[in-house]
Amino acid sequence: MTITMAMLDAYPADSVFEKQLLTRSIQTCVECAQACTACADADIREEMISDLVKCATLNLDCADMCEATGRVLTRQTGFDADMVRAVVQACVQACRVCGDECDRHAQMHEHCRVCAEACRRCQHTCEDLIAALT
Amino acid sequence: MTITMAMLDAYPADSVFEKQLLTRSIQTCVECAQACTACADADIREEMISDLVKCATLNLDCADMCEATGRVLTRQTGFDADMVRAVVQACVQACRVCGDECDRHAQMHEHCRVCAEACRRCQHTCEDLIAALT
Amino acid sequence: MTITMAMLDAYPADSVFEKQLLTRSIQTCVECAQACTACADADIREEMISDLVKCATLNLDCADMCEATGRVLTRQTGFDADMVRAVVQACVQACRVCGDECDRHAQMHEHCRVCAEACRRCQHTCEDLIAALT
Amino acid sequence: MTITMAMLDAYPADSVFEKQLLTRSIQTCVECAQACTACADADIREEMISDLVKCATLNLDCADMCEATGRVLTRQTGFDADMVRAVVQACVQACRVCGDECDRHAQMHEHCRVCAEACRRCQHTCEDLIAALT
Repeated sequence: MTITMAMLDAYPADSVFEKQLLTRSIQTCVECAQACTACADADIREEMISDLVKCATLNLDCADMCEATGRVLTRQTGFDADMVRAVVQACVQACRVCGDECDRHAQMHEHCRVCAEACRRCQHTCEDLIAALT
Repeated sequence: MTITMAMLDAYPADSVFEKQLLTRSIQTCVECAQACTACADADIREEMISDLVKCATLNLDCADMCEATGRVLTRQTGFDADMVRAVVQACVQACRVCGDECDRHAQMHEHCRVCAEACRRCQHTCEDLIAALT
Repeated sequence: MTITMAMLDAYPADSVFEKQLLTRSIQTCVECAQACTACADADIREEMISDLVKCATLNLDCADMCEATGRVLTRQTGFDADMVRAVVQACVQACRVCGDECDRHAQMHEHCRVCAEACRRCQHTCEDLIAALT
Repeated sequence: MTITMAMLDAYPADSVFEKQLLTRSIQTCVECAQACTACADADIREEMISDLVKCATLNLDCADMCEATGRVLTRQTGFDADMVRAVVQACVQACRVCGDECDRHAQMHEHCRVCAEACRRCQHTCEDLIAALT
């Protein structure tokens, strides 16, 4: 069992979301934030950085949005459905845009390929979470 | 002139947003994030913390969302209108929900009164920004 | 292979640190940040919150410090040994202080027990990283 | 009076630090974080990005460290002197290294000049804060 799941199990009240889905959502957000931070760093280090300017900055935006979403989803106390939905929707948009851009460089740069996959996984888990909210 | 404005002026290309509005938006996000972090901390220290549980956690969510939004708005490179709109809308929601909750405690706790004002200011500036995007 | 390791492998230059150790450090930072965010949230929700005030706020500090450290360690470009050492040392301190406080509540609260373990793991990996720097 | 100072005044207990110094420290951290985020973004957009690779990534590190420090300093509850000292020292290092690098490009790029000043100011305020702790 992961630490994320163990912490959810130890929470002293019920969670709004089903625990498996919530655990998966938090973990893909955290994972995607780290991948995007790494991809931005690798982009900047590439010799062809001029082709990767948009990719690097979308990665930085996506990292910030995934990190904020991972924190908001981690908090079960004071849950507000409208706020959580808006935050997760913004995360979906950030992952979609960043994933699309990384995809364009996936054949040339392995870091973009791995990062695009992390973005897709995060986007789809967040979409599942929004569906579960309605 | 503030540093935020000086940095926007020094950016080596045009910005999508009008500079006064963008400067104000970034600054209210950053200011609101700091106020919310302080309000959560004060809530937890109050003797009547049991009345402020929801307030403290919404403050933490709002701080994270304002900080992420302030960073996304700071980046002019790789601008994506759909993503920025979704991020700023999530910030509006976080500020609205957190501002409402802080308002409930504003007469009792000065930190909630000051924080509610910071949330309102950030919410309204973000709403102006969304209006400017469409 | 984890995404963190895959991203390090795809980085277009050498890393200063040995990859297994660096991967483990980044992952324990990210994991500890999430556990601390969850523990603060659970603390605030406990009926005996008044006993957990210090724990909740140290958790918030430790989450912020672990997140910043995870990001700094993720970046291989522009590596500065003195800065990285100071950042990782601050992370060690945050994990030590937070882990000690969580330990005091570990028998009473399962979330504190799990979080204390995450703090210890992060502290020790960061200590290994500092040793590798010198 | 700034919001930061108003929130400190409304805190329901004494602060460890003198309020003027603490307010200034929090504000320079927050200000420096925003300037560094903007400078990284401007660096990436410059045609001579290849000269600014190190600058951009040190800016990102410094932004993360200043943001974490600003949050830790904002929290008065559960104050731990050893942890705060280590965090603020890491912030001093990040600002020193980033300020030095920005200085190298200050004559060529106005954003580096403004950012170097923000780094110096943050470094010096943090040094004053460490001196006040001992």
